[in-house]
Amino acid sequence: MDTLSEMMKTMPQKPFAARDALVDCIRACSICQQACVACADACMGEKAIDRLKRCIRLNLDCADICVATERVLSRQEAPDLSLLRHQVESLALACRVCADECAHHKDAYAHCKVCMDACKACEQSCNDLLGSAGFAQAGVH
Amino acid sequence: MDTLSEMMKTMPQKPFAARDALVDCIRACSICQQACVACADACMGEKAIDRLKRCIRLNLDCADICVATERVLSRQEAPDLSLLRHQVESLALACRVCADECAHHKDAYAHCKVCMDACKACEQSCNDLLGSAGFAQAGVH
Amino acid sequence: MDTLSEMMKTMPQKPFAARDALVDCIRACSICQQACVACADACMGEKAIDRLKRCIRLNLDCADICVATERVLSRQEAPDLSLLRHQVESLALACRVCADECAHHKDAYAHCKVCMDACKACEQSCNDLLGSAGFAQAGVH
Amino acid sequence: MDTLSEMMKTMPQKPFAARDALVDCIRACSICQQACVACADACMGEKAIDRLKRCIRLNLDCADICVATERVLSRQEAPDLSLLRHQVESLALACRVCADECAHHKDAYAHCKVCMDACKACEQSCNDLLGSAGFAQAGVH
Repeated sequence: MDTLSEMMKTMPQKPFAARDALVDCIRACSICQQACVACADACMGEKAIDRLKRCIRLNLDCADICVATERVLSRQEAPDLSLLRHQVESLALACRVCADECAHHKDAYAHCKVCMDACKACEQSCNDLLGSAGFAQAGVH
Repeated sequence: MDTLSEMMKTMPQKPFAARDALVDCIRACSICQQACVACADACMGEKAIDRLKRCIRLNLDCADICVATERVLSRQEAPDLSLLRHQVESLALACRVCADECAHHKDAYAHCKVCMDACKACEQSCNDLLGSAGFAQAGVH
Repeated sequence: MDTLSEMMKTMPQKPFAARDALVDCIRACSICQQACVACADACMGEKAIDRLKRCIRLNLDCADICVATERVLSRQEAPDLSLLRHQVESLALACRVCADECAHHKDAYAHCKVCMDACKACEQSCNDLLGSAGFAQAGVH
Repeated sequence: MDTLSEMMKTMPQKPFAARDALVDCIRACSICQQACVACADACMGEKAIDRLKRCIRLNLDCADICVATERVLSRQEAPDLSLLRHQVESLALACRVCADECAHHKDAYAHCKVCMDACKACEQSCNDLLGSAGFAQAGVH
């Protein structure tokens, strides 16, 4: 078993959502974060950087939102489910706009293709988590 | 003029929202972030730590969401306003739930009072920004 | 091939160190970061929290240093090798002190065992990277 | 009294270094972090972006190292002074290389001048903290 799955099983608190959905989403945040940081940097190395400015900007935004979301999902003590729901929705949106932008460049730049796929996978994991048992019922403040 | 105001004036891009509201919100994120990191740590040093676990948890969540939000607001190049709006709303919510929890402890612990005030100020700055010219019209994806 | 390896292969810049060592270290940072955030939270849920305060503190420090280090290693454009070297050494130290503290609790708490192993693996990856071709020669400012 | 000073006075733990030096350094980290995030973004908006790639890269590195360092300095519970010393030295170095790079562009771009000044101030605050009573004696692991 990998570190993340093992860690989530050994925490004394009951997970606030279905554990598998939680583990998948945390992992997707982590992968997406790195991909976005690296894609922004890779875009900096391309000659056509002028066409990649929006890509860089959305990469950086998505990476920062990934870090915050991964962390709030990693904590099981006394969660505020409405807050978590809102933050996961925010990440799903960040992933969507970043993937849409990367899609424009994916044929020219392989790193944009890799990043697009990571963003799409993360958006899907966010949506799966939002729809999972327990979490789905979280109301709105 | 302070560094933040000066920086925001010297950027070549037109700010995506009213500059004063943007500067105020970025500053509030920064202050709130530090207060939340420190309040979580201060709570760790109190004998009644068992009663402060929810406070610590919400402090840590709010701090992480502050960092992400401060950063996305600091970028003026090619913003996605719907994403920014959603993320600022997420921070406003994080500040509200953290301030509400700190309010339970503010008479016993001065650091919870300081943190509560920082969270309330940050929530207000978020709401002011959300209502400011330009930003207010940002639609929903 | 996984996302991280693929991303690092598609960047236009030549990696500033041996690519395998770089990929391993970035991955180790990411795993260690999540383990530390979760272990701090898991410790919060234990009855003997008073004995775990130093563990929580070092977990949080290590997690923050992991995020920063993972990001600076993910960028290949125009690196300052002396800075990267110093930051990777800082993370190796953070991992060592955190693993040493978790070692005191690993028999009582499985999450401390998981976290200790993640920290040790990350420290090893840092040291491997520091000794890898190209990076090893980076001087000191 | 401002929020940061008040927070650091109300924490139950004795600060691990001279409180004034600690407050100054935490504040400098926070200001420098924002300046670096914004300067990287401002550089993205300049026509001569090709000459600013190293500036952007060092801005992003410095910003990430600022966040980590600000956070570890904000915690007073059970610190590991050798680790803190190493991390503060790492930030001082990040600030120095970033300021040196910004210096090349400060006459052309006012945001590079603002960022250079913020980095220099942060480097100075780091060095003042490293030389302050209590902290100065911290050995090396």
